Order: sequence, then C-alpha cells, then structure tokens
Amino acid sequence: MRQAVHRLIVPTAGKGLYEITDAAVAWVREQGVGQGLLTLYCRHTSASLLINESAAPEVRGDIAAYFERIAPEDGPYRHRNEGPDDMPAHLRAALTATSLGVPVLDGVPALGRWQGLFLFEHRRDPHRREVVLHLLGE
Amino acid sequence: MRQAVHRLIVPTAGKGLYEITDAAVAWVREQGVGQGLLTLYCRHTSASLLINESAAPEVRGDIAAYFERIAPEDGPYRHRNEGPDDMPAHLRAALTATSLGVPVLDGVPALGRWQGLFLFEHRRDPHRREVVLHLLGE
Amino acid sequence: MRQAVHRLIVPTAGKGLYEITDAAVAWVREQGVGQGLLTLYCRHTSASLLINESAAPEVRGDIAAYFERIAPEDGPYRHRNEGPDDMPAHLRAALTATSLGVPVLDGVPALGRWQGLFLFEHRRDPHRREVVLHLLGE
Repeated sequence: MRQAVHRLIVPTAGKGLYEITDAAVAWVREQGVGQGLLTLYCRHTSASLLINESAAPEVRGDIAAYFERIAPEDGPYRHRNEGPDDMPAHLRAALTATSLGVPVLDGVPALGRWQGLFLFEHRRDPHRREVVLHLLGE
Repeated sequence: MRQAVHRLIVPTAGKGLYEITDAAVAWVREQGVGQGLLTLYCRHTSASLLINESAAPEVRGDIAAYFERIAPEDGPYRHRNEGPDDMPAHLRAALTATSLGVPVLDGVPALGRWQGLFLFEHRRDPHRREVVLHLLGE
Repeated sequence: MRQAVHRLIVPTAGKGLYEITDAAVAWVREQGVGQGLLTLYCRHTSASLLINESAAPEVRGDIAAYFERIAPEDGPYRHRNEGPDDMPAHLRAALTATSLGVPVLDGVPALGRWQGLFLFEHRRDPHRREVVLHLLGE
C-alpha cells in the first residue's frame, strides 16, 4: 500500500464550473496504482468541488444559475467584507462539496459514464485555486 | 492493510430514497476487516447518496418533498433533453452527496443509532444504479 | 501504513456552528503521521459537518441564518415527533456534510488558510455530539 499527493492549481476567471476531470485522471494514471482511493480536497471557502454531468455544456450554466437563485448576492448578509459575492460564495461552498472520495479501479477513478469532476468558482475575480489530490492504494 | 471493492446494484422504480444500509453493512462484515474506512461512491449524476434518519419512514417523504420544492421541475432550465425531471435531478445530486466516507470500527461501519445509508433516486423512470463500495483496513 | 481512531465529543448548547479545528488538528499531530488521510464522521442525523471560513465570526451567523431561511421550522412537514426543529434539522444535515475527507500533509490536515472545521448543530436543545476521527497514513 502506498500514497501519492499532488497539488492541482486551477486558474479561474470568474464564477462558474471548471472541469478538472482530465487533469485528475491523468495524474492518477501516472501513479500506476491499480486499486485505491482518490481524495480531492479544495483548500478554499469560496470555491468548492462538484461531480456532475460533463457531456451537455448547458448543464453547467443551469447549475451556476440555480446557485445564483438559491444563494443570491442580494441576501440579508452581515458579512460583506469583500463585496456582494463574498457571503454567497461561502453559502454555495457549504451546499456543495469541499472534499470528494472516488474509488480507483483498474488504475483510474471509477467515475460514471456521464460524470465529470469540477472546481466550482464562486467569486467574480480571477483566482488560482488549489485542489489537493491524495491517492492511497496499490 | 488490505482493500476490497464491491459494485452494489440498486434497482429503482421512480423518485425517492432507497435504503442500502443492510446491504452495505453485510458486505463490510463479510470482509473481516476490524478497523478501516468504507467509501460509498454513486456513479451517476441524477441519483445521489444520503445519510439520514432511518427509523421514521415519514422523514423520507419529507426529504423527497423538500427537494421537489427547492429544485422544482418547472424551474427556468435550459437543459431539458430528457424531460422535466432531468435538470432538477442534477441539482438535487449537487446538493446532496456523490461520495461518503464512513469509518469502520469493530468490523462494521460506525453509523450512529438513527443513521441509515440511502440511494436517492431523482428520476421518474426505473433505473439500475451502481454504488461502488471500497473498503480499506485491516 | 497505519490507522488511528478517536471519538471527539462536542457538547452543544443550541443551534449553531461549533469549531472543532483545534481539537482535530491536535489529535492528528499527536499520531505522528506525516502523510495520510483524515476522515471526520458525524454520527447524527440532526447535526452535520461543515468546512468554512473561520476568521470572520459573522460568517457563522450568516450561515446559520441562511439555513433557517431555506429549511425553515414552519415548513409543510409531516414528521414533527420531536418538535418544529426536528425535520428542518434532517434537511440541513442532508444539505451539508456527514463525512469529510482531508488529506494530511507534513503531519497536519491540509486545511486552507481560511478554512475551519465545524460541527453544525441543528437542534435547539443541548446535545453531546460524537464525531469519529479516522486517520490512515504513515
């Protein structure tokens, strides 16, 4: 049994879903682990992780629009230090995932046919987001 | 330290919560691992995982009804390829879990007294859902 | 590769976010594991886990107020066995996390600079909540 760790940097240019499937799968493949557990961990409180449909691009727009509606910028928030997109970003992160565990089978993450891995950016300004990939297996 | 993997098939007959606690616990017991980590992974984008109260059956109905309200079928979605329950299914999956990690203690998952493991089906039509169970421990 | 387990008891005095970052980090440090995976698991269906901003205290109030709005006590619930805060507690647990996986790097959980670990209590009455900490690594 062994471990490997990688820090995946995801540059973002405003709100939305940034697909990281290829980068994560490629890194896992390189480790040469047949069976194991991949953990993805987002080191931020205003960006998060999401597994969702990767085939139809309009799904991403619908997901982004939905979170604008249920955690809107004009809510009755006290915390507004960094502008109107600050507190909704924390709420959207709370409603989605900060960490994901994906079993690795036959050397690759066991994603379903339609599943993609996404970094969900909740802030308007550009950021460099860090997702820690941790692999345990043999 | 060793690993085991199982593909649990969950036949569904429409929207709702399908309990998989017994199947998951039984499989873990059979592996003879005293202490470890169980990961459950749902390979779909229109079904998800949930840990919630298993004792009172009306809780499941309230949970299902709640998600009908907060991610309704008649929302302003662009993605409607597979009908009105398509996009809400993706949203409900995004709001709940695709993967769950449960420590294993004394040979069984460390579920609390009232906790049950559920496959949450978000589509109307029957499906065969696949949940990957991955166990690491000794 | 080795494992360690700890049962962290979190006494709560009503709804809100209770920070457990220091307790979790201190326990991980004591295990002397350089690299690994920390899993936090909440054994309840009316309390949950959350990773969010720990620096600005008003963020916690905004998060609590937000969940009061989206899963209100006066919703059309059938399950009311334990009072008006019973069913909303299950819904808020469903919308946040029951388990979290955090990679351990250089002997400590790889939390981002602004991230804190919280037990999110959803009931009004005092409780003693149990969070299982499971560490795997070397």
